[in-house]
Amino acid sequence: MGLREDAERIVKESIEAVLPDEAVREALRGKEFGAGRVYLVAAGKAAWQMADTAAKMLGERLEAGVAVTKYGHAKGAIPHVQCWEAGHPVPDENAFRATRAALELVKGLQSEDTVLFLLSGGGSALFEQPLISGEELADITRQMLACGADIVEMNMVRKRLSAVKGGRFALACQPARVYSIVLSDILGDPLDMIASGPACPDTSLCEQAMAVVEKYKLKVSGQARELLQQETPKELPNVETRITGSVTELCRAAARACASLGYRTVILTDRLACEAREAGAFLAAIGQTWQDTKESLAFIVGGETVVHVTGQGKGGRNQELALAAAEGIAGLCDTAVFSVGSDGTDGPTDAAGGYSDGLTRDVLAREGIFIYNVLQDNDAYHALQKSGGLIMTGATGTNVNDIAALLIRRQTSA
Amino acid sequence: MGLREDAERIVKESIEAVLPDEAVREALRGKEFGAGRVYLVAAGKAAWQMADTAAKMLGERLEAGVAVTKYGHAKGAIPHVQCWEAGHPVPDENAFRATRAALELVKGLQSEDTVLFLLSGGGSALFEQPLISGEELADITRQMLACGADIVEMNMVRKRLSAVKGGRFALACQPARVYSIVLSDILGDPLDMIASGPACPDTSLCEQAMAVVEKYKLKVSGQARELLQQETPKELPNVETRITGSVTELCRAAARACASLGYRTVILTDRLACEAREAGAFLAAIGQTWQDTKESLAFIVGGETVVHVTGQGKGGRNQELALAAAEGIAGLCDTAVFSVGSDGTDGPTDAAGGYSDGLTRDVLAREGIFIYNVLQDNDAYHALQKSGGLIMTGATGTNVNDIAALLIRRQTSA
Repeated sequence: MGLREDAERIVKESIEAVLPDEAVREALRGKEFGAGRVYLVAAGKAAWQMADTAAKMLGERLEAGVAVTKYGHAKGAIPHVQCWEAGHPVPDENAFRATRAALELVKGLQSEDTVLFLLSGGGSALFEQPLISGEELADITRQMLACGADIVEMNMVRKRLSAVKGGRFALACQPARVYSIVLSDILGDPLDMIASGPACPDTSLCEQAMAVVEKYKLKVSGQARELLQQETPKELPNVETRITGSVTELCRAAARACASLGYRTVILTDRLACEAREAGAFLAAIGQTWQDTKESLAFIVGGETVVHVTGQGKGGRNQELALAAAEGIAGLCDTAVFSVGSDGTDGPTDAAGGYSDGLTRDVLAREGIFIYNVLQDNDAYHALQKSGGLIMTGATGTNVNDIAALLIRRQTSA
Repeated sequence: MGLREDAERIVKESIEAVLPDEAVREALRGKEFGAGRVYLVAAGKAAWQMADTAAKMLGERLEAGVAVTKYGHAKGAIPHVQCWEAGHPVPDENAFRATRAALELVKGLQSEDTVLFLLSGGGSALFEQPLISGEELADITRQMLACGADIVEMNMVRKRLSAVKGGRFALACQPARVYSIVLSDILGDPLDMIASGPACPDTSLCEQAMAVVEKYKLKVSGQARELLQQETPKELPNVETRITGSVTELCRAAARACASLGYRTVILTDRLACEAREAGAFLAAIGQTWQDTKESLAFIVGGETVVHVTGQGKGGRNQELALAAAEGIAGLCDTAVFSVGSDGTDGPTDAAGGYSDGLTRDVLAREGIFIYNVLQDNDAYHALQKSGGLIMTGATGTNVNDIAALLIRRQTSA
């Protein structure tokens, strides 16, 4: 098998490990719920798959459930579970109705009962029950955006205007236990940020929220002002959280796949957030230095790089990373760099990402294509198309950032 | 000792290891020269220190020598060695005279004799004896620069117009042996590039050199045209080369210093060449991911990053790297990033580089200084001055690129 096949296999296996169904299966494996009843609440873009998998695993153990996902994302009926579809990224009445149904479901539970809470990206809009009118919430959000409030400031305010955000959903479940399985799409897995943390204690204080109102001179109703002075839960002893399907898990799965292919493997980071092409150059520089290795090596990086667009071409951050690396690894034997988005879509293209190896630069040069110029034009897609370096997976059904790796393959004596 | 002290010590020890005198000492340690006579030829910005150290080590074993360095760089008389100072970066008559003296010195040697050839950066101008007039050489160089010839093309032509470049100096030493100690200042140590390789076989062919003349329609004299058809040496069996004091050695010395301080250490690359601030962000991302480590860790990178200047501030690539990392490691316990230029001068500043740790971002924020803005203005110097993050070494007397590291310190049980 060649390097390209290795890359394809690592991509496939790592994405499979973070699909919502596999993530839920992994989190529920061997989990005991005791004597009480088990309820399910699922919210987010992957809510339907997560709820479906959980319902299948729980079988008759599942008392009842509510799942709310984006329009077009529910794939059929799930036994015992009410499925809703709602607006994203702007919450609509359906989101509010579904969330009310979830709050209704968890009312009056006993301490031995469990609410299985399945959260994925998009939950912030899809799981919401404002304590003021939807119109005023939208207006306050607009005001904060207009005056340049940052995401932390916005969350301080919005958590207090919601019946479920900032830990309030888990509070509503009390005295029942909450087992929260979170499919993370934010680097570093900040639990209070993912869907504004419905089952996560909030660390911000009322004074801070009020300070935001003063600082930006926000226009708020008397009712909103009163709500801003009501504290969010600071402790939620009934909650147990399992973060899964995050970019960390994506990196670990990639590492397992690399190891099974015979690479000595190191995960450098799962928080990469720098410029895509520079990350490619950095990986290539590592590749140059480690050429003398006797054993096969894999350096893995996960995260979400950025691209500052300067041209009119077609591409995405993963394709730019892989193509930029081609310059640095040109001429190196059995050395490759790949990068893919776990959702299977890199930028506005049909590719998941890109692959390049020691031959890529010269293959392109023979076609009159020079990497520096391609990157200036942000046109990595067409260059990789020429070099056979596009990685296509189709939509994967998950979204936990990107995975990239530098591979150096060596014949190891058995 | 704190992280800052660790950083200072690693910087000090790694630079000391690549000082010209230490590099020469290391390369001559235990070296046997047999029964023949030993001569010395030194060229480059560090020629005087290298020759002085070698002369001290060789003592009466040294028959005679010639050293040529930049104006102001000779520090006194060296026994048995003629010291010259000459023009750099444009060669002048003194360079030609010194080089003729060196060629005179190595004429008529025996096969048991040794020429110790000490080469450092700047040797290309300082060690030159053109086979055409200095005026025509300057004119051809100007023509090639004007028409956009690349460095490889320029060298193909210039090596053939020189009595010493492209391996011809080592050829002139035959049948004597040449022990070449090269203080490398080019990433990847391409021996035929450092000072145009006076003791390195040349891989380019006459036809290629002539093709350059045709391609750019260079105006050359009949004499030059004849010289361009004389082949450079393709094999030099009398030469033994020792590359020392390179960025690779700088990285290894840093790794030894880290290890002696208790860090488990990995050299990621000695060829870093990406944008400085992005390299800082990459190192910081590694730092975030490895916070759970139980043992102290050091990730070392060497090379030469670049800065695309967008502002009017004061700084250098090493300071930008360190400051950019401060954003990513903010709040992390016992985590630091430093970067320094081995010559002790980072950009047009009196600092060698910069240091930042988990506190730096907040220290600056309290002063109203925000890293993003500072980097936009390329003003890392003043920000690091405020945070106490400037690393000052003074001029070191060497120049083998930069060294940077991410340090994560943990209390390890004894």
